[in-house]
Amino acid sequence: MNMLVIYIHPNHQSLSYAFLQQVLRGSRENSNITDIQVLDLYEEHFNPVLVFNETKRRRDMHADPALQKYREQLIWADKIVLVYPIWWGRPPAMLLGYIDQMFASGFAYRDKGGLLPEGLLKGKSAVCISSMQGPTHYPLFFLNNAHKILMKRALFGYVGIKPVKFFEFGNMESKNGRQSEKLEKIYRYFKTIAR
Amino acid sequence: MNMLVIYIHPNHQSLSYAFLQQVLRGSRENSNITDIQVLDLYEEHFNPVLVFNETKRRRDMHADPALQKYREQLIWADKIVLVYPIWWGRPPAMLLGYIDQMFASGFAYRDKGGLLPEGLLKGKSAVCISSMQGPTHYPLFFLNNAHKILMKRALFGYVGIKPVKFFEFGNMESKNGRQSEKLEKIYRYFKTIAR
Repeated sequence: MNMLVIYIHPNHQSLSYAFLQQVLRGSRENSNITDIQVLDLYEEHFNPVLVFNETKRRRDMHADPALQKYREQLIWADKIVLVYPIWWGRPPAMLLGYIDQMFASGFAYRDKGGLLPEGLLKGKSAVCISSMQGPTHYPLFFLNNAHKILMKRALFGYVGIKPVKFFEFGNMESKNGRQSEKLEKIYRYFKTIAR
Repeated sequence: MNMLVIYIHPNHQSLSYAFLQQVLRGSRENSNITDIQVLDLYEEHFNPVLVFNETKRRRDMHADPALQKYREQLIWADKIVLVYPIWWGRPPAMLLGYIDQMFASGFAYRDKGGLLPEGLLKGKSAVCISSMQGPTHYPLFFLNNAHKILMKRALFGYVGIKPVKFFEFGNMESKNGRQSEKLEKIYRYFKTIAR
């Protein structure tokens, strides 16, 4: 199993980075995972701004040469792991701008005229690891699970990626947030996943 | 009433731009609206990437000199109107990156230790005008209203902005999408709003 880990946080002095380290530690001890690539969108200086106009057509975006290496990473990956903080109830603009550009028609899906298209990234699965200030149940009860619904239904389901496993960690600002327990949980998960 | 219209689309050959024009046409005929500013985030080359690290602290973001003119616009506005397409069930990364940076702690809200903070942008209201491919009821039934919930509860409610009025237009790819009727509806709305 090839695993692509996409890390989205402005710096490495963060809990998101600590989660990334545990993903990698567990995965390296897991013989089911043959190879790992890490894409650090901030370190990469990825430009999240999707541009299209009369000369740069949206319909050609699936073949944009500037994004070729990122498409190859996605094709290569059997499992896509996203590690990010929750800001305003959803992932940072940096990740959403990567999505705006990478999951283009003709690469990630093909319109067939119906409500749902044909997903072109079938056979892959995903894991979303997010952390936030505020209590763990805030996204569920107050935000109606909007974050999960957007990632699972509006994005991954649309392009054929399933299942999508979520780890949503709250109370991360708190000294009693059981951070080490949560980090250990991620380590154990990645040490043992079979597919 | 001062009105700030934020337009988020890569180009002006778009239905979003047509909606912007109707917002402006109606507003200019409305004597309740004394002044209008338009912020075109793409034309402005706004950088949506929120950066913070050991030298640029997140807690100082509310006073970042580079964002001063945008803060002044928000303070000046009594009504904030957002015009954008729906991509992947939510607004473009460009708008979300504006939000990541502008609605900073100490400017838009103040933590008081409880679940909800004190909103510092009280007294303002908002209108969201979004358009998308696909049927109008897709966000409601299939996505559980995730887009509205994120804008209304996770963002505007959090900083004290209310009410928030939504226009979500679907079927925009269709020749039978009744585009002119929808444009006219926006024109009439802005021609007559009292506050």
